[in-house]
Amino acid sequence: MDYVNGPGRNHLFVPGPVNIPDQVIRAMSRNNEDYRSPAIPALTKVLIEDVKKIFKTTSGTPFLFPTTGTGAWESALTNTLSPGDRIVSFLIGQFSLLWIDQQQRLKFNVDVVESDWGQGANLDILASKIAEDKAHTIKAICIVHNETATGVTNNLATVRKILDHYQHPALFLVDGVSSICALDFRMDEWGVDVALTGSQKALSLPTGLGIVCASPKALEATKTAKSVRVFFDWNDYLKFYKLGTYWPYTPSIQLLYGLRAALDLIFEEGLDNVIARHGRLGKATRLAVEAWGLKNCTQKEECFSDTVTAVIVPSYIDSSEIVRRAWKRYNLSLGLGLNKVAGKVFRIGHLGNLNELQLLGCLAGVEMVLKDVGYPVKLGSGVAAASAFLQNSTPLIPSRI
Amino acid sequence: MDYVNGPGRNHLFVPGPVNIPDQVIRAMSRNNEDYRSPAIPALTKVLIEDVKKIFKTTSGTPFLFPTTGTGAWESALTNTLSPGDRIVSFLIGQFSLLWIDQQQRLKFNVDVVESDWGQGANLDILASKIAEDKAHTIKAICIVHNETATGVTNNLATVRKILDHYQHPALFLVDGVSSICALDFRMDEWGVDVALTGSQKALSLPTGLGIVCASPKALEATKTAKSVRVFFDWNDYLKFYKLGTYWPYTPSIQLLYGLRAALDLIFEEGLDNVIARHGRLGKATRLAVEAWGLKNCTQKEECFSDTVTAVIVPSYIDSSEIVRRAWKRYNLSLGLGLNKVAGKVFRIGHLGNLNELQLLGCLAGVEMVLKDVGYPVKLGSGVAAASAFLQNSTPLIPSRI
Amino acid sequence: MDYVNGPGRNHLFVPGPVNIPDQVIRAMSRNNEDYRSPAIPALTKVLIEDVKKIFKTTSGTPFLFPTTGTGAWESALTNTLSPGDRIVSFLIGQFSLLWIDQQQRLKFNVDVVESDWGQGANLDILASKIAEDKAHTIKAICIVHNETATGVTNNLATVRKILDHYQHPALFLVDGVSSICALDFRMDEWGVDVALTGSQKALSLPTGLGIVCASPKALEATKTAKSVRVFFDWNDYLKFYKLGTYWPYTPSIQLLYGLRAALDLIFEEGLDNVIARHGRLGKATRLAVEAWGLKNCTQKEECFSDTVTAVIVPSYIDSSEIVRRAWKRYNLSLGLGLNKVAGKVFRIGHLGNLNELQLLGCLAGVEMVLKDVGYPVKLGSGVAAASAFLQNSTPLIPSRI
Amino acid sequence: MDYVNGPGRNHLFVPGPVNIPDQVIRAMSRNNEDYRSPAIPALTKVLIEDVKKIFKTTSGTPFLFPTTGTGAWESALTNTLSPGDRIVSFLIGQFSLLWIDQQQRLKFNVDVVESDWGQGANLDILASKIAEDKAHTIKAICIVHNETATGVTNNLATVRKILDHYQHPALFLVDGVSSICALDFRMDEWGVDVALTGSQKALSLPTGLGIVCASPKALEATKTAKSVRVFFDWNDYLKFYKLGTYWPYTPSIQLLYGLRAALDLIFEEGLDNVIARHGRLGKATRLAVEAWGLKNCTQKEECFSDTVTAVIVPSYIDSSEIVRRAWKRYNLSLGLGLNKVAGKVFRIGHLGNLNELQLLGCLAGVEMVLKDVGYPVKLGSGVAAASAFLQNSTPLIPSRI
Repeated sequence: MDYVNGPGRNHLFVPGPVNIPDQVIRAMSRNNEDYRSPAIPALTKVLIEDVKKIFKTTSGTPFLFPTTGTGAWESALTNTLSPGDRIVSFLIGQFSLLWIDQQQRLKFNVDVVESDWGQGANLDILASKIAEDKAHTIKAICIVHNETATGVTNNLATVRKILDHYQHPALFLVDGVSSICALDFRMDEWGVDVALTGSQKALSLPTGLGIVCASPKALEATKTAKSVRVFFDWNDYLKFYKLGTYWPYTPSIQLLYGLRAALDLIFEEGLDNVIARHGRLGKATRLAVEAWGLKNCTQKEECFSDTVTAVIVPSYIDSSEIVRRAWKRYNLSLGLGLNKVAGKVFRIGHLGNLNELQLLGCLAGVEMVLKDVGYPVKLGSGVAAASAFLQNSTPLIPSRI
Repeated sequence: MDYVNGPGRNHLFVPGPVNIPDQVIRAMSRNNEDYRSPAIPALTKVLIEDVKKIFKTTSGTPFLFPTTGTGAWESALTNTLSPGDRIVSFLIGQFSLLWIDQQQRLKFNVDVVESDWGQGANLDILASKIAEDKAHTIKAICIVHNETATGVTNNLATVRKILDHYQHPALFLVDGVSSICALDFRMDEWGVDVALTGSQKALSLPTGLGIVCASPKALEATKTAKSVRVFFDWNDYLKFYKLGTYWPYTPSIQLLYGLRAALDLIFEEGLDNVIARHGRLGKATRLAVEAWGLKNCTQKEECFSDTVTAVIVPSYIDSSEIVRRAWKRYNLSLGLGLNKVAGKVFRIGHLGNLNELQLLGCLAGVEMVLKDVGYPVKLGSGVAAASAFLQNSTPLIPSRI
Repeated sequence: MDYVNGPGRNHLFVPGPVNIPDQVIRAMSRNNEDYRSPAIPALTKVLIEDVKKIFKTTSGTPFLFPTTGTGAWESALTNTLSPGDRIVSFLIGQFSLLWIDQQQRLKFNVDVVESDWGQGANLDILASKIAEDKAHTIKAICIVHNETATGVTNNLATVRKILDHYQHPALFLVDGVSSICALDFRMDEWGVDVALTGSQKALSLPTGLGIVCASPKALEATKTAKSVRVFFDWNDYLKFYKLGTYWPYTPSIQLLYGLRAALDLIFEEGLDNVIARHGRLGKATRLAVEAWGLKNCTQKEECFSDTVTAVIVPSYIDSSEIVRRAWKRYNLSLGLGLNKVAGKVFRIGHLGNLNELQLLGCLAGVEMVLKDVGYPVKLGSGVAAASAFLQNSTPLIPSRI
Repeated sequence: MDYVNGPGRNHLFVPGPVNIPDQVIRAMSRNNEDYRSPAIPALTKVLIEDVKKIFKTTSGTPFLFPTTGTGAWESALTNTLSPGDRIVSFLIGQFSLLWIDQQQRLKFNVDVVESDWGQGANLDILASKIAEDKAHTIKAICIVHNETATGVTNNLATVRKILDHYQHPALFLVDGVSSICALDFRMDEWGVDVALTGSQKALSLPTGLGIVCASPKALEATKTAKSVRVFFDWNDYLKFYKLGTYWPYTPSIQLLYGLRAALDLIFEEGLDNVIARHGRLGKATRLAVEAWGLKNCTQKEECFSDTVTAVIVPSYIDSSEIVRRAWKRYNLSLGLGLNKVAGKVFRIGHLGNLNELQLLGCLAGVEMVLKDVGYPVKLGSGVAAASAFLQNSTPLIPSRI
């Protein structure tokens, strides 16, 4: 089955699915169980409470859908909106593009605000649209917190400020797939109505859980939302939450135990420490890119992503060749450039359960691949720049002091 | 996490999720991988070919959705039908009820053919409806091959005969959740247009794959089907099949490797031997029930299910108490009676990777629980009846001869 | 690798190696670690304290040798005795025979007290030898607590009484391989000087730890013991215990984490409850044997073993055929008859992490095999007898009440 | 249990136990089995044949002892020699010291040839001793192929040449613990009589197998060897080899399946490719050390070890602090300096299932630790030197071309 074995470990630096900690792999290595026995509801009850913490919400209601991020998107939209509803959505890269495609196919009236790939969401345009919309025809703002294709982080606090400034009631829907559990995210403080993530991203689990968290206002919206939904219907879940059995259909037992283990690790490290670690690894990566003489796909510092860095390659190089060669020669998995930036960027994912030396190994690998494909990089230069920063900023591991 | 530990193994006899073979647990105990590397498409390509075998189809196209059976239902319906379409659906137990509920919420015009719980689908009524429908207003027949709530198996060959007899073009949609890989199922021979199953049933995997297989006619139907769909859209998959990358969004790497291992085990045993084994275990279970002096929820021999037996308890006993006690005292997981038969039946699931002695241990446990709750069973009687049959009919394990 | 796959689980009823709980398999599924980091000594320190509890000792010193029971035997002998030393040893079955063979090859002067296989150690002869030995030429008494080949448990309290009665200073060495953690064993109360077990027996781990526990008197004896020893030398361990690094050479990291998980399960259940469970399963097995009309290899009630039952087959049956057929047809692993009782007995091991329904599945299987080989057993009879007892005596699982 | 969790993976660079490939961890994650069923002997038979390949022998006989390297040493000595026998042994570091200690405690007459730590075995002295020994009083030459404490590889071919030159019949005993499966080792070509290794070294398994391989001449020597042995006796094994049951006592089922998986990976990569990879990683490490301005514990190029590099630190630094800090801050496990070189060297193990980027991550970590403890290293310098070599010499992964 593993016919593409190479010696040693695979260095997994795509921006998802990411490395699973051994503790989580162990916790999931188990037989099925009867999900109607008292054990699984008891486990689920606590999980739902604990999941709120990663969204930084106390008033939100989480749903653990057996699906992917794409399904979580669909759940967020269909539970809160009706066909024909006007929504404002920001196109800044491949994943926001795919979400917009879904929004259109679900028959919403999508008001697309496009930026060049590499730029953040244009919130000035949002502000003017909101200012103009006295009639409140805009039912929702849909925004990707972190665009995984370009390594751009949007400013969600500003979105909230705009809505508040104009006292606009639009729902605030956030794709946090490559941000939640890695970047600073504050559902309650920012008044996010629906936030969502996928298990295979910063939570460092296998794919299979689309985690959606709904504000009271979002739950209220389900009453009028006319979009057709069954599998993704929140109210089916809420019915079983009330019964205390929690599941309208069969969950993955293994993912529940895995989520338990993943949250335990995150809480043990401390969510804010986890976020700080991502900040450290993100900055180290950017310092390496700079040392190589290459450009980040995004050039505005306020948009720098701490979970993924998209690196622009010189025009005489095909970035796909970098990705192929990294895998074939160094057992290093990098992210491809997608769609508009295909061939132009490669991506380094630095999210999830990851530490400094793993990243430095990756950076050393990228340097060698760059040289392989003809870019005149100075070997060691990126590692040196990243190390200089990390050697100053990395804390001792608290459990080992 | 395992705060409800008991000594020894859990005896898992709910009709899903079922026991996962150790080989499969091992195959799934792994880190994530880049699903865009050449390895995963190569794995997927072969899986899709091999999955056809469990449907007994050569012309069908399988889709491996990261979802559950409920999602697979939704995928089957929305890809082939339009809101308002007339469909005939059979209500014979809780799972057919849930499917019908979904059909109605998806806005189809559902012509429900109801039978008493414990009876099979009334195909005489189907025949008369089809006979009458000269205008071909019926767009699809939806039927559960094996109703998990009552242990009833429907006769799919007859459905095909009826449609053929009247040359009726209705699509033939089959829920094979608790049948495929366990009962005799022949997609091509029976002209089934969409068949589906869930990974946690006879395939003996964790929950997380909703496997849907579409006939060429079903694929053709997607062109006119107006039901809204994105996550569950077959055409998104087909687009990526053509590209050779196979996945419109992130699959569960672990479940793909698990499916590979599960199929390997099934093919090694031989699919027909697997089905024969289920026949053996089903019959042994029914002989035990008879020896206990209890009744099967279904009384017609042609409806007997070889994957799950629903046992009717005397009216002075609450079947839920049997299930609770089995778990609390003997670490035995039985299935509850659901909805109309709640409290009246308990269910023994005997599907998936299971052998004779596992079943006999379960039957011995059921006997003790029956006595616990006051039913005057003769201890050993069911085991004796089942053993007498099994000792005659169990073949040698081929790999050990 | 698993070319002898059969459907469903293997029913493992040899008297070791026994079933490993899933929690332990999970705990062991891990990469290596640096055993010189602070983590492993900290883990080891607690393990050594906790291991004392399974020996019921506070004054003993445990050693966790990376070896098997045979190595543990060698360690017990060579650390406490000198070549030429007179020892009294009891030959009652294959494992006591093998230990005696080792004693002789290690050049001790072994005074063998032989009994018929199926009988316990003849302690009357011990008493007379001790009575006669005014000169204290007997340096040690070596006794197997539970002879795994014949299912005979010896009375250790009586050995202590005899030694005390004559104020004889002989060391008291006990093979507890198939007893400790399953049968009532009291190192301190019975004045045992060296007790030992293997990880793959009642501790329910993989093979690989030979656990030896030495009394202060046994430790003292190392000073004068002239037997050559290096790998098995306790004093090398004690040196590292003092240093706080614990290991004179590399331990198995995996087995240490496994031992931690195994002890956690035993302590959670309660050691005395574990012993009571073995009592229950042992008695149930004997009731089944009686119901089948067969004889236990030992006929004295005070010698009945609660961890293994050796069943005598009629002379017209070869017991090896029973074992072969059980494996080939029912995926049931039984123990062969060994040496003098080869072909005459088969053995049912009922020790370790095991519950009532697992045993009943095994007993149902034995019944079918007996019938397969031509013994006129009444199918269900053994299960009925065992169930009648178990249905009365099995407690609720405490964590599930 | 994992109370010393840190984020991300542990970087395990001690010279054993080493990283276990995931494929091997998976293969070992399993329940016990009856080792007397036909399955385990069949597995063992093939393993014994395949193990010969890693020793490069066709005439040797391997033994898979459930023990560690220390036990394997004892087995090599006691099966071939008698107390009082004169043996020549080379003291060049901590592990040769420990072996010599064992030899002395086993009562051999050890003729110790000592070198400064960091030097190789003095084979000139061997030559003169052999030349003088016309009476053939020297019964064996004991030599460590690779001294793990100092990173020194001895020249075994020269030992054979010396013996052949003088037609001396002494047995040639080799500790290959940190060499076999990683360095060039040729049992038959070099006329080695006993070679041994431990599973947790280049085979990349958990600790628990002491693998000993005996030449026909060594097997012959067992007939006259008077050293006391039972657990470690080869003839007990040979007796069971002949019977076809293979095991005189219980093996670890898990380690057997693990060995199968480990050998499969080694053979898939190709043993000579595995050795070449170690050569590459060893050289890269030495280039980094040089770039840091530090010295290798051994200075002779012909003694450079490709499995472990001992790095001398400046006298104002305590090398133990480097090891402590690496673990506490960077989750990097390095080897301590032992005994004479304690505090003076730290060690980088680069053996087993390991690749280029793993090593570069380690080297980047060492640089940061060096800076942490006050050594004025230029960050990135070692990585640059190693990368420059690796970028030129690393082949494509064959399975991915």
